[in-house]
Amino acid sequence: MANEYIDVETLKFLLNEVHDLEEILNLPEYNDHDSDSIDLLINSVKDFSDKEMYPYFKEMDENPAHFKNGEIVVHPQVSKYMKASGEMGLLAGAFPYKDGGMQLPSTVMNALGYIQEAANNHLPGYIGLTIGAAELITHFGNENLNQTYVPKMLNGTWGGTMCLTEPQAGSSLSDIVTSATPDGDRYKIHGQKIFISGGDYQGAENIVHLLLARIDGAPAGTKGISLFVVPKNRPDGHGQLAPNDVETVTDFEKMGQKGYCTTHLFFGGNGDCHGYLVGELHQGLKYMFLMMNGARIAVGRGAAAICAAAYQASLKYAHERAQGRKLASTGKKDVHQEQTLIVNHPDVRRMLLLQKVVSEGALSLVLLTSKYQDLSKSLQNAEEREKYALLLEILTPIVKTYPSEMGRVAVDNGVQILGGYGFCSDYILQQYLRDIRIFSIYEGTTGIQSQDLLGRKITMENGKALQLLSNEIKTTIKAAMVMDNLQAYAHTLGDKLQLTQDILKSLLGYAQKGDYERFLADATPFMDYFSNILIAWLWLDMAREAQQALLTGSKRHNTTFYESKIHAMQFYFTYELPKTTGLAEIIMNDKALTIGSKQKVFGNEY
Amino acid sequence: MANEYIDVETLKFLLNEVHDLEEILNLPEYNDHDSDSIDLLINSVKDFSDKEMYPYFKEMDENPAHFKNGEIVVHPQVSKYMKASGEMGLLAGAFPYKDGGMQLPSTVMNALGYIQEAANNHLPGYIGLTIGAAELITHFGNENLNQTYVPKMLNGTWGGTMCLTEPQAGSSLSDIVTSATPDGDRYKIHGQKIFISGGDYQGAENIVHLLLARIDGAPAGTKGISLFVVPKNRPDGHGQLAPNDVETVTDFEKMGQKGYCTTHLFFGGNGDCHGYLVGELHQGLKYMFLMMNGARIAVGRGAAAICAAAYQASLKYAHERAQGRKLASTGKKDVHQEQTLIVNHPDVRRMLLLQKVVSEGALSLVLLTSKYQDLSKSLQNAEEREKYALLLEILTPIVKTYPSEMGRVAVDNGVQILGGYGFCSDYILQQYLRDIRIFSIYEGTTGIQSQDLLGRKITMENGKALQLLSNEIKTTIKAAMVMDNLQAYAHTLGDKLQLTQDILKSLLGYAQKGDYERFLADATPFMDYFSNILIAWLWLDMAREAQQALLTGSKRHNTTFYESKIHAMQFYFTYELPKTTGLAEIIMNDKALTIGSKQKVFGNEY
Repeated sequence: MANEYIDVETLKFLLNEVHDLEEILNLPEYNDHDSDSIDLLINSVKDFSDKEMYPYFKEMDENPAHFKNGEIVVHPQVSKYMKASGEMGLLAGAFPYKDGGMQLPSTVMNALGYIQEAANNHLPGYIGLTIGAAELITHFGNENLNQTYVPKMLNGTWGGTMCLTEPQAGSSLSDIVTSATPDGDRYKIHGQKIFISGGDYQGAENIVHLLLARIDGAPAGTKGISLFVVPKNRPDGHGQLAPNDVETVTDFEKMGQKGYCTTHLFFGGNGDCHGYLVGELHQGLKYMFLMMNGARIAVGRGAAAICAAAYQASLKYAHERAQGRKLASTGKKDVHQEQTLIVNHPDVRRMLLLQKVVSEGALSLVLLTSKYQDLSKSLQNAEEREKYALLLEILTPIVKTYPSEMGRVAVDNGVQILGGYGFCSDYILQQYLRDIRIFSIYEGTTGIQSQDLLGRKITMENGKALQLLSNEIKTTIKAAMVMDNLQAYAHTLGDKLQLTQDILKSLLGYAQKGDYERFLADATPFMDYFSNILIAWLWLDMAREAQQALLTGSKRHNTTFYESKIHAMQFYFTYELPKTTGLAEIIMNDKALTIGSKQKVFGNEY
Repeated sequence: MANEYIDVETLKFLLNEVHDLEEILNLPEYNDHDSDSIDLLINSVKDFSDKEMYPYFKEMDENPAHFKNGEIVVHPQVSKYMKASGEMGLLAGAFPYKDGGMQLPSTVMNALGYIQEAANNHLPGYIGLTIGAAELITHFGNENLNQTYVPKMLNGTWGGTMCLTEPQAGSSLSDIVTSATPDGDRYKIHGQKIFISGGDYQGAENIVHLLLARIDGAPAGTKGISLFVVPKNRPDGHGQLAPNDVETVTDFEKMGQKGYCTTHLFFGGNGDCHGYLVGELHQGLKYMFLMMNGARIAVGRGAAAICAAAYQASLKYAHERAQGRKLASTGKKDVHQEQTLIVNHPDVRRMLLLQKVVSEGALSLVLLTSKYQDLSKSLQNAEEREKYALLLEILTPIVKTYPSEMGRVAVDNGVQILGGYGFCSDYILQQYLRDIRIFSIYEGTTGIQSQDLLGRKITMENGKALQLLSNEIKTTIKAAMVMDNLQAYAHTLGDKLQLTQDILKSLLGYAQKGDYERFLADATPFMDYFSNILIAWLWLDMAREAQQALLTGSKRHNTTFYESKIHAMQFYFTYELPKTTGLAEIIMNDKALTIGSKQKVFGNEY
């Protein structure tokens, strides 16, 4: 039976059966864990989310984080959640034993994060950024930074942030101007950072900012950016904290995720803000990007989780709300009949199935990408690690984008199922719709991810990542081809792979001629196209696993469960995948209508 | 140059040139008006909207209508706007001279409504429903009802509403249970109505509800529903008002359109609510639906207006915000170059053009449907009137749906153009996104409109409406075919018309076999498909008009203006129309995946 916000059975099916978690747990690094211990962990995080997260979800929306008297007031559950997460080991989970962690694979950490985000997406960001900041220190910081900051971050006492964006630079990091002036063994920091999630909040003992800045005289562009630890309060070495001249200017009020504060910070307004270099000079962006794959998977995971929670809410409504009647063979309705549940109306069911295939397809993509991340890090064989590193690279922009973009469409369908109630604050759907809107902007917009996919990842190492990915897809096609009820779908997917080759050949022609603007002009429709096909692959793989279980009489789930996965795959191939036919036409257009004179395009308007 | 929220030049181009308003103004009924007087009227409504509407748009969102001490508190501008609209004649505009109106055609009224809704979509609903309620009385009510209610409604002193929806019935009007018990020459009303827009607000002297109820002993279903005038306060015949036992139970808090109140009303809780029958017994739904075409055009108009305003806001931002650089022929960026305006990035321009083609295409559809409405009402020749009545019928579900559905997608792209700022309350885009969400629910959801289109309008009179519409499209194709630069597009549109025939042949097969559930199961994807093609037609028609103007050297607009319309048509045919290829595949699927056992579809979830 469905509970309020998540389908744990499907999560476990994907984790254990489709993506074979055992394969990761058998690696030496993760050998202390096994399927049973992970199962217990999932159940305990679900229990924790039921109690400490879900009950505050609506409250946090209704009582937004806000700026008051120089600080950010947040819901009191934020600090409690931070501390409780620290105690449960959720902050340190992925860290090695030597750092006090549980040495859990990324695949498991993302499954746990997914549950929490489905319960209340306003909270996990606080620990997510703290984990990311701590990882940067443990990977690249010196022993002193590690000892001073990491333990307090991983036990939930101190928060962490990533300070990248500046008002004049936005997505263009080469234009950041925050300065770092050498001052003995440290630096004096001066500059403004905006859109800093979790940047400051009432009740936080300290916040540790991982900040990008330009050391005086550094080269222009991204090659002159260094990474610093800049605490809100600096430890004096004797257990005391002193203010470090980090001012909270204000917060950003938003249409969604209102419980997750977004701040504008001013570093060094009084000339007394200390920053501590992490790693080497001018390597800041490189360090930041080494963490970026994880951050982007986390964004996709959050969007997938919101999408899943919205699906559960509208599924529940559709099973409880009676309205209208089925059409008789005369084309009329019999008003003397009782009203039917709306789940029985084909149009409502189409919207529910859309939500189901998007949310479960997105989750499958998140888990697969996480698995590639684990394998790329922890396999023994260097060549194998390289293979999975490339697969991770090509999937990263997609795992960030598909759940954010199609998740939004899916949640929107959830709102529509509730009719007028969907628009009303008494029902939760509208909150999911507002919350999910930020995900296609976080950590590089869809436009930027799409340029990364087509401009970098498809072409990297002469197309090797794409070749490896195609091989994985072909393995699934081959396995599905021998199953009678999947064969036709396997054929269709094969055709789409061939079409993709044709499209890329056409697009790469522009790059070869040096016309990069043209090459990348339709990167976003290409992202739509390519991610749609990848999700078809993942659904075929789920159907293959389900069919296999039916054939072998597996008792891990009941027959209906497996059959519903095959049905969902059919829905995906029937209602979603055909969109790629139109998208292919769009991408292969020869018109260049988005390039050239502004006036020709917008006339007198500007 | 663009102003804040609307492109008046394009509105006038569509009204006067593309849709030839003169043709309507030349009809005897509208003969007192001419293009110049309408032009002045448009300018004065724009001026009024600049002063009385746009400045309150954000305020009304930030200070939502809310229930307090038994009444609904709204922004003080609501009453001022009502009165000012009455004084300007905007309420009575479409009414005949004998009712104190200006006898303006619907096409002009919708152009004026469009300007107001672009300025502030929280206000026009108050007058829109008042106009609709007054129209019901003037069309179907007796002399006494007319004299008692209409003058005060049309001068903006009393508000009006439509009371249809009930908690247990929702979209299924056959299930309403509000009762009317004969009591002399009037009725006693008892029942609850929900989602009543403008249902009550502080400062309104009176509210006149047009309410659907079932007279004791009436037949089941929609055939037993009658229409009543039920005032909040009943006039005693001596100029005084007495409470009529209409209680405001509460309001609905919403994610958008927060300044436009939505109420829950309880009629006759104390057994003392008088209702006055409008027209004949059991004809209520028929009367209501005679007004429904106008109401549905108005919903599409509102969505088109929000979409246009959002486009203007993101277009302005894209012309002011510098960020990033163009790619050089090396595929790299030169960081020593100045940053470029984001309007120069192809991906941003694609999103702007999407907004442009959706918003202008939607406006063209609204004006065309309005024109059909005028011609169906006011032409001398009965056969010609019948022709335009059928065209009006087939376009009505589409004009309600396309602007609401694709408008939302367009506004969403507007938000994306602003990046993180798009999500922030300091910028207006997020408000447009929240506001427009209700339009695909108002006046029959998209699912219901789609069933109306495919199940009723396409098949009515043996497909005659569709045949007439195809003839109109073919006329445009023929005219465009002789213009060199439009020929290829005209061919494409012709092919899409043929494809539509194939699709309908396939779908109608189910209806002929009596399988109506299957016939209508994919009515919504069919709506997507069909409306996409209609907008392509309207763009081809705009391009034809623009090209004609360029050829004849028309000076009504400058060359750039006309060229930009042709460019936008090309964009539509290149980036939007190809989606119909995939949609056709979806609609013609032979799988019936949304029909049948719930369990097979949703497994163990419910």
